[in-house]
Amino acid sequence: MSDTRHDVIALGNAIVDVLSESDDAFLKAHGLPKGSMQLIDEAQATSLYADMGPGVESSGGSAANTVVGVAAMGGRSAFIGRVQNDQLGEVFTHDIRASGVSFDPPQALPGAATARCLVLVTPDAQRTMNTFLGCSGELGPDDVDPDLILGASITYLEGYLWDPEPAKAAFRKAMEVAKAGGRDVALSLSDSFCVDRHRDEFRQLVAGPVDILFANEDEIMSLYQTDDFEEAMDAVRGDAPLSILTRSEKGCVIVTPEETIMVGARVPEKLVDTTGAGDLFAAGFLHGLTTGRDLATCGRMGAIAAAEIISHYGARPESDLRALIAGV
Amino acid sequence: MSDTRHDVIALGNAIVDVLSESDDAFLKAHGLPKGSMQLIDEAQATSLYADMGPGVESSGGSAANTVVGVAAMGGRSAFIGRVQNDQLGEVFTHDIRASGVSFDPPQALPGAATARCLVLVTPDAQRTMNTFLGCSGELGPDDVDPDLILGASITYLEGYLWDPEPAKAAFRKAMEVAKAGGRDVALSLSDSFCVDRHRDEFRQLVAGPVDILFANEDEIMSLYQTDDFEEAMDAVRGDAPLSILTRSEKGCVIVTPEETIMVGARVPEKLVDTTGAGDLFAAGFLHGLTTGRDLATCGRMGAIAAAEIISHYGARPESDLRALIAGV
Repeated sequence: MSDTRHDVIALGNAIVDVLSESDDAFLKAHGLPKGSMQLIDEAQATSLYADMGPGVESSGGSAANTVVGVAAMGGRSAFIGRVQNDQLGEVFTHDIRASGVSFDPPQALPGAATARCLVLVTPDAQRTMNTFLGCSGELGPDDVDPDLILGASITYLEGYLWDPEPAKAAFRKAMEVAKAGGRDVALSLSDSFCVDRHRDEFRQLVAGPVDILFANEDEIMSLYQTDDFEEAMDAVRGDAPLSILTRSEKGCVIVTPEETIMVGARVPEKLVDTTGAGDLFAAGFLHGLTTGRDLATCGRMGAIAAAEIISHYGARPESDLRALIAGV
Repeated sequence: MSDTRHDVIALGNAIVDVLSESDDAFLKAHGLPKGSMQLIDEAQATSLYADMGPGVESSGGSAANTVVGVAAMGGRSAFIGRVQNDQLGEVFTHDIRASGVSFDPPQALPGAATARCLVLVTPDAQRTMNTFLGCSGELGPDDVDPDLILGASITYLEGYLWDPEPAKAAFRKAMEVAKAGGRDVALSLSDSFCVDRHRDEFRQLVAGPVDILFANEDEIMSLYQTDDFEEAMDAVRGDAPLSILTRSEKGCVIVTPEETIMVGARVPEKLVDTTGAGDLFAAGFLHGLTTGRDLATCGRMGAIAAAEIISHYGARPESDLRALIAGV
């Protein structure tokens, strides 16, 4: 893969997370299903923020977390997303660049603010996410530079992009350019509620252009509308060349038309906050793939990165991931 | 003290901290003395931020941290400071209110942004602070509502306010109103470099209107220009009715004209980041005073709050301080 500038390029929402400790009663009082991600408008964001406890701001965004993880392991990665000329936009841009990811945001249009996600972390380490997309939802096809896509081995797309229309068009363009250039397309289903919203189209993507699929248990069962994980696994085996199905503490299952490989989860030193677990799992797996490891090793690298991220608050790594994967 | 609305009201800089892991080589390359606080302008802030690693944003400000600590222990507290109508101003305002502190910021003037402090945390848990004061330095006498000052048992002032002229005038007004109304005035010397900048005036304050003085070892020795802690202790005994001299892991010494009380430090579970240690020590001590505890108990309460804050990143409490001080 020496003809590429980047190992992984991601297209995703550029979001600053606002992490706050919460409890089940608060989620219930605000009608928020635990572990889910819901889109909220500016008025809802203002109202929920007013009710929340004190917060800590940390750069996030699902696919952005993944490319930061790739860079932290020594991979070459880039990101495409939209931020506003505001303080949170500055924070997002600084953090992703300081993490070693290439990021040249397009000129911000006046108007919507940089996206933020109000993340409520309950004592069981589960996170419930409430996303105000702001200008991130304005990401469009013009933001997708074909040369950047063609210069990356893998183009990684988050399912969340399917929510706003312009981002969906950007997603389609990136996918088409990558496929036409013989590059691989990876998709994360993002969230089971997101799968509910876009099931038919996601099914077409998985059975069509997607080369590598990341999904957790809930998402893959939602995609194939079944309560039976084995059934979902068989279904995806017929659809996609490579699927990685994560099952939290039960580890992951790597599914190809010929193989089924189970890899155990890593137990973190301390379970603090599951924000970013799937994103960092994908980072480890993709870094394994782009450095020529076998699938089981890729799975172990994903598990190591996921274990690091859930041992502290926030979705960006705090430990030296390169050192952590060295012995894999 | 039932004739008061608040136990403690603080006047201080309204700052959002940007915490980032760093190392000694970075501090050296940028000419930053470890453990110090320096004021930087917007250009310096931009340049230093560009060089820093990824950060986490968390509300801070020395005196603001103290009143948040008081509220977290169940005390009634308020804050006076200036924020801009920007995202960091919104973060500061949300966090301090969500912590139970009364805060009604004055109408922001157009112009300077909300203050931020680039905090570089080295592996030895020391923090080196680089503050861009922004609109916080515009805090002036008109922002000091005499009724608020008169409604609080103790008015707490941070030495950092002595840097910008308008804030200094606000400081003087708050002090005069409090004294005229028979309330107590507490001062934190903030930082030994700050003492260097304003030594003569701080000496006059300590020998004059200040009822309660908080200082660490470096600050009190800088104030009296001596290398000998005992000498500084004797000097302050002659100047102030009550001084609390903190000595990191050696605990604190409480000095009055008649008494010298030594209280041991609490060892944190894990030493992560000393940002806010002095601020939270002051919170515990002041909460003890305003709830009628003896001086040694006040010192133990300060030590408990300080041990909590240095066990994690950031200067705002993450554990239930009320529970932690319950057994004191």
